[in-house]
Amino acid sequence: MAETHGELTHTTHGDTASHTDPTNVPHHGIHPVHGFDVNPWQLCWRGMDIDMIGRTETLFALSNGHIGLRGTFEEGEPVEQPGTYLNGFYELRDLPYAESGYGYPEAGQTVVNVTDGKVIRLLVEDEPMDLRYGRTVDHERVLDFRVGTLRRSTLWTSPTGRTVRIKSERLVSFTKRTIVATRYEVEPIGEDMKLVLQSDLLTNEPVPLPGNDPRLAAALDNPLVSALADCEGSSAVLVHHTKRSGLTVATAMDHELDLPGNAETTIRADGDLARMTVAATVPQGSKLVLTKYVAYGWSARRSVPALRSQVEAALAMAGETGWDALKAEQAEYLDEFWRDADIEIDGDPELQQAIRFSLFHVLQAGARGQTRSIPAKGLTGPGYDGHTFWDTESFVLPMLTYTVPAAAGEELRWRHATLDKAKARAAELAQEGAMFPWRTIDGDECSGYWPAGTAGVHVSADIANATGRYLRATNDEAFEVECGVELLVEVARFFAGFGHHDVDGNFRIDGVTGPDEYTAIINNNVFTNLAAQQALRDAVTVVHRQPAVARELGVTDEEVEHWTSCADHMSIPYDSAAGVHQQCEAFTLLDEWDFESSRDRYPLLLNYPYFDLYRKQVVKQADLVFASYLFGDSFTLDEKRAIFDYYYPITVRDSSLSACCEAVAAAEVGYLDLAYDLMCESVFTDLHDLHNNVSSGLHIAALAGAWTDCVAGFGGMRDFGGNITFAPHLPSRLNYMSFRMVVRESRIVVAIDKEQATYRLLDGPPIELAHYGENFTLSDTPVTKPIPEPTAGEPPTAPVACEPYRRE
Amino acid sequence: MAETHGELTHTTHGDTASHTDPTNVPHHGIHPVHGFDVNPWQLCWRGMDIDMIGRTETLFALSNGHIGLRGTFEEGEPVEQPGTYLNGFYELRDLPYAESGYGYPEAGQTVVNVTDGKVIRLLVEDEPMDLRYGRTVDHERVLDFRVGTLRRSTLWTSPTGRTVRIKSERLVSFTKRTIVATRYEVEPIGEDMKLVLQSDLLTNEPVPLPGNDPRLAAALDNPLVSALADCEGSSAVLVHHTKRSGLTVATAMDHELDLPGNAETTIRADGDLARMTVAATVPQGSKLVLTKYVAYGWSARRSVPALRSQVEAALAMAGETGWDALKAEQAEYLDEFWRDADIEIDGDPELQQAIRFSLFHVLQAGARGQTRSIPAKGLTGPGYDGHTFWDTESFVLPMLTYTVPAAAGEELRWRHATLDKAKARAAELAQEGAMFPWRTIDGDECSGYWPAGTAGVHVSADIANATGRYLRATNDEAFEVECGVELLVEVARFFAGFGHHDVDGNFRIDGVTGPDEYTAIINNNVFTNLAAQQALRDAVTVVHRQPAVARELGVTDEEVEHWTSCADHMSIPYDSAAGVHQQCEAFTLLDEWDFESSRDRYPLLLNYPYFDLYRKQVVKQADLVFASYLFGDSFTLDEKRAIFDYYYPITVRDSSLSACCEAVAAAEVGYLDLAYDLMCESVFTDLHDLHNNVSSGLHIAALAGAWTDCVAGFGGMRDFGGNITFAPHLPSRLNYMSFRMVVRESRIVVAIDKEQATYRLLDGPPIELAHYGENFTLSDTPVTKPIPEPTAGEPPTAPVACEPYRRE
Repeated sequence: MAETHGELTHTTHGDTASHTDPTNVPHHGIHPVHGFDVNPWQLCWRGMDIDMIGRTETLFALSNGHIGLRGTFEEGEPVEQPGTYLNGFYELRDLPYAESGYGYPEAGQTVVNVTDGKVIRLLVEDEPMDLRYGRTVDHERVLDFRVGTLRRSTLWTSPTGRTVRIKSERLVSFTKRTIVATRYEVEPIGEDMKLVLQSDLLTNEPVPLPGNDPRLAAALDNPLVSALADCEGSSAVLVHHTKRSGLTVATAMDHELDLPGNAETTIRADGDLARMTVAATVPQGSKLVLTKYVAYGWSARRSVPALRSQVEAALAMAGETGWDALKAEQAEYLDEFWRDADIEIDGDPELQQAIRFSLFHVLQAGARGQTRSIPAKGLTGPGYDGHTFWDTESFVLPMLTYTVPAAAGEELRWRHATLDKAKARAAELAQEGAMFPWRTIDGDECSGYWPAGTAGVHVSADIANATGRYLRATNDEAFEVECGVELLVEVARFFAGFGHHDVDGNFRIDGVTGPDEYTAIINNNVFTNLAAQQALRDAVTVVHRQPAVARELGVTDEEVEHWTSCADHMSIPYDSAAGVHQQCEAFTLLDEWDFESSRDRYPLLLNYPYFDLYRKQVVKQADLVFASYLFGDSFTLDEKRAIFDYYYPITVRDSSLSACCEAVAAAEVGYLDLAYDLMCESVFTDLHDLHNNVSSGLHIAALAGAWTDCVAGFGGMRDFGGNITFAPHLPSRLNYMSFRMVVRESRIVVAIDKEQATYRLLDGPPIELAHYGENFTLSDTPVTKPIPEPTAGEPPTAPVACEPYRRE
Repeated sequence: MAETHGELTHTTHGDTASHTDPTNVPHHGIHPVHGFDVNPWQLCWRGMDIDMIGRTETLFALSNGHIGLRGTFEEGEPVEQPGTYLNGFYELRDLPYAESGYGYPEAGQTVVNVTDGKVIRLLVEDEPMDLRYGRTVDHERVLDFRVGTLRRSTLWTSPTGRTVRIKSERLVSFTKRTIVATRYEVEPIGEDMKLVLQSDLLTNEPVPLPGNDPRLAAALDNPLVSALADCEGSSAVLVHHTKRSGLTVATAMDHELDLPGNAETTIRADGDLARMTVAATVPQGSKLVLTKYVAYGWSARRSVPALRSQVEAALAMAGETGWDALKAEQAEYLDEFWRDADIEIDGDPELQQAIRFSLFHVLQAGARGQTRSIPAKGLTGPGYDGHTFWDTESFVLPMLTYTVPAAAGEELRWRHATLDKAKARAAELAQEGAMFPWRTIDGDECSGYWPAGTAGVHVSADIANATGRYLRATNDEAFEVECGVELLVEVARFFAGFGHHDVDGNFRIDGVTGPDEYTAIINNNVFTNLAAQQALRDAVTVVHRQPAVARELGVTDEEVEHWTSCADHMSIPYDSAAGVHQQCEAFTLLDEWDFESSRDRYPLLLNYPYFDLYRKQVVKQADLVFASYLFGDSFTLDEKRAIFDYYYPITVRDSSLSACCEAVAAAEVGYLDLAYDLMCESVFTDLHDLHNNVSSGLHIAALAGAWTDCVAGFGGMRDFGGNITFAPHLPSRLNYMSFRMVVRESRIVVAIDKEQATYRLLDGPPIELAHYGENFTLSDTPVTKPIPEPTAGEPPTAPVACEPYRRE
């Protein structure tokens, strides 16, 4: 994540410097513990390590983009963050300022932990099952990337000597997006046993509260107020609302019980707790099996009875479908995903696993958001307050656009749904068109530090660029008519009004902050200007393609002409003495940073003031380097190499958004092994907890970087103007790589080895591609092309103590 | 003030955008009520206007720079702000941040209203005297600039028909700086009357609390905790301490009673109230006269008994001196002041009064601070939290240096006393030398918005420049050895380390904010760079003059050489196409501001985001124009005119620090009548409440601007390198002006009319001066020189709706 979403404190909610990754950045010498079995299609953790609880809760999180469950134990404890998150469900809190200013957001939004439906407590004779007590003989948890469930198997002996085997399997359905299901079974070993199960809906669980912000703590502490509780038979429902944000959530559960003998079953529902209790004597050799279905429904508008009805209907559907069918649908959904998105490599099994882990979690974050956002941490933890940043459009959508294009389209429909807010925000700030928020849950700006928030206007261009990319990659005309034109027009209006032509006719965009947050409120940031240029050009294109829609939006010929002029005369600062582009005007004239004295003081924002960082040549994360990839048709290869050679040695990667971009740029200019190292840093960000904060949620953008690094980095894939081109080449460590893409109606697979690349059309119409500048049409016959010898020089050196992360 | 001390809300403490003047800036069309008698040596207000209470409390404030009393009524009510302020006495509060950052100040300081010794309540028969009830037959208050007291005379008829004449006179002693004295007399008219007087020391009076910041409200609400209360005879003492800041204040009172018959007198002291009660039957035609002495002592170190002893000793001294002698000393002190500082004009009696009002209040702010600060509002109100900004050194000290040089020296000794904090702050921010705070009471940075706080590094240069100016104007070698060298060396160290030489050898100072707070975090602000250049050069000078002191500070030859190089190669950006200097690098390339659409939206910071203001050519207050005067030897006259012509039309004067600087610059380039208008705007800032916030305190810097505008503006006085030069010329409205100055051991008076200027030496050794570039020695014989014809072109036009304030 990082980029601009700083967390100064170690608490997961303590976002401070907008959106940065906090302490202990990996390449600065901290090598975290990690101990997963290496398996190409699973993440498996054996044994019990209390210190790893928070980390595994995140890594084993399940989500369909609509509902997210952290990987907590059914028994409820031990637990670090008992998270159940619903996309778009948040509480408000006041944002305080020591000195306030016009246009500062007054309210912040914070994702809250809602009613927990995961809980199934177990009493073995009269001992509560709790892994912190007794003896855990055997314990294993498996996140299965093809089945789409979290399995768990535990052999546990209670403090009084009773042994049980517990197996559970949990899913958040990709196909029925309001449904969570758990199958939980207990088998007494060696003797008959009295067992009690308590299957709960539990609201207002205790959560860790941040110590540094009383307003935030107040928002998170007991966030929900009971509106309804009811139960009957094996089902119960709770409805709650938030105190300030006006949101209501209904949660319902139903159960199927399968046990060898008789059981006494009771149910209750009251306030913050609904509970079905099953008490049974279970003979050894047989099992008590409970299947629990939970449905969530939430809304800012629908009434308590309406939401209650909605979740009860969803439960009825889930029950009718049944556990086995739900699981089968889940696997089927994932089969389709892997068919379109899988990446295979040879030469690094651990990386293979990590790549699939990454792709799986990106899917989980974005699959079924449906006009809701894809937050920076998905729905896996409370980090960054659950906010969505520019990462979504700039890092996550590039993958989804070519693998699950419908998910990309849905995310952009969400942005479109917030367009009124973005237009109101622009008007509030005396601007035209639409200004999208730097960080938000529901579309309102929540950034409390404007130099790294509001000033990051590239977020609006990023959204426009994702729109343009999506349209070119899908030809989704319904989206274009309903959303795309308007998104592009309003963003173009913003930039055309925001910048200005100087006396020499150059179009300047002044007073902004680019991706690099160690330089802020600067003029003519190349990244921002090229992103705006692309946004303006894409607006011109769609306006010509959809004249009726444009007319409805009041677009005039003069306006379009002006956009063209803005784009054509965009200022791109260049230092001819140094022979390199400037990240922003005057950047190369700034003082040098003393990397030697900061070698043990990373991340810098925790140890140096912005005041000092802003005025020196030190870069938090790929900015111009990212631009040289994203807007690669604006640079020659020599210019790109000059950019990489100049900026890589001053980029400290205090952001998890950096390594994946640098990897692509390094690969393009021929530094393949450096690209490999940088890619690994991005891919292992969470699995190896490189930023020491995975317990507060995954870094979805860094995980999406796995795809980008393979496809755009080693595959050399670019999509300028809808023309898909490749320039594949592997690093020395890999013998083989294949990846898949969906482009418009065509599905392709590209297989690369050291000597050649083979392109295959899986289905759909023939498609025009290019290999190292040579165009060809890919139809039913695979096409194989030779890979030229790499012409790599010596790569530049990272800042001291900022070498890329390398596994032991 | 304004510059950088914004107050977004109308509450007096609601500082937000650092330090700006808020709503209703005068030149934007609001013409406030004002109704003072025109009198050259007094400010007299007749009648009673409840709406004017807060305003008159400020205008009638008394202070000696050590203690400040707002002009509240003895009866305690009606009241808006019952302020009693002690220099350096404050409470702490947390500074909150929506997103915190490294190096942000965690605690703010706020001046608090201490024990009120002004209160003398009166009961007429059984009616409390209260101007809101009964009938005020006659009521007049006079602030006397020569006597140094606030006199009041009220003829009042109670609701039950009893008429009394009340006269009071109050002083805060310039000669005994811990003493406040009040003479209060009541005369029954037409009948004998039972009168009761209650003379109080009252702690924790209710004060208006800001609604927008609970932390600030908490700091101001009942700020003091009782530590001791005692009384005996006619005297009482209260000692209190603050809750967080560790300060203790002792207040004692004693009384002399003069009445025609018998009276019953009681005294009590308890917690937050000490009270002497006098009950008497007073025959008509005679008077009950109470003289009340109050002494204040406060400290962060001295114990309760020590402070108690201190104030009781002060009281003993005051009583021994007696009212008449105190008053005589007061007048004598002021005679000396006016001898050295008076300005006489002919042609505008209202302006004459306003100028003396201004000079008097500047004296009150700075007279006896003695190693304490001179806050932006003196000790006249709670505005800006009682903080001191760069105004003191850049606006107030220029006047004091040439009129009350000892007061200037004391203020700089205060800065020197905070040098350890400034060095610690520099170290915290990874800088060398000393960084003085943007806003403070005790030397710690209290600015909660760093782009307009910490980034305003010119404050350190301003302090250094005031030091250099003071040394040249006084030859105060003791100060130089004890404070001056160290101040200059540590500031030079800061700038030498903070800037850097670029590849072409130019010395750049990047990432700062200059005086104009509508542009921030910019590179090579001309004002800052010239101020730093001066600071570096002055450091070199004193190091050469005091080699032993320099050695003790570890100054090396290499260091001094480096300072010289930094100064010699200072970057001064110039736009050759536009033919004008740039306020900062790239400034003239920024977009234009649309003044037409903002015409009714001043001050801009309340209606536009910094985000938009920063990136456009709109200037809050004189910045480069100020530099063209302060560092005038760095520009040709043509360059100055080009600067004025370019920047005046884009400067909106959303700061009371602007008009006085612009007036000087306008006068220099020949726009004399415009200079006159601008001067009036500065001088009437408070008398006519042009910023609609005078009730929260005076704008001491704008008042000091009266002196600067006369002396530097129409007198054309400059002091470059200790050479005092003049270029006098009057605007058409004035026939005559004379002003006085103290330069080293010499006192001079300059008298100007339309044709000529006459220079006289009042006492002291002969002095080298210059008149329009012609050097001459002024000794006992007056020197008269002709004034050249003005060569004024047409002055430029102010931004729409920003024309200078003109009286009706």
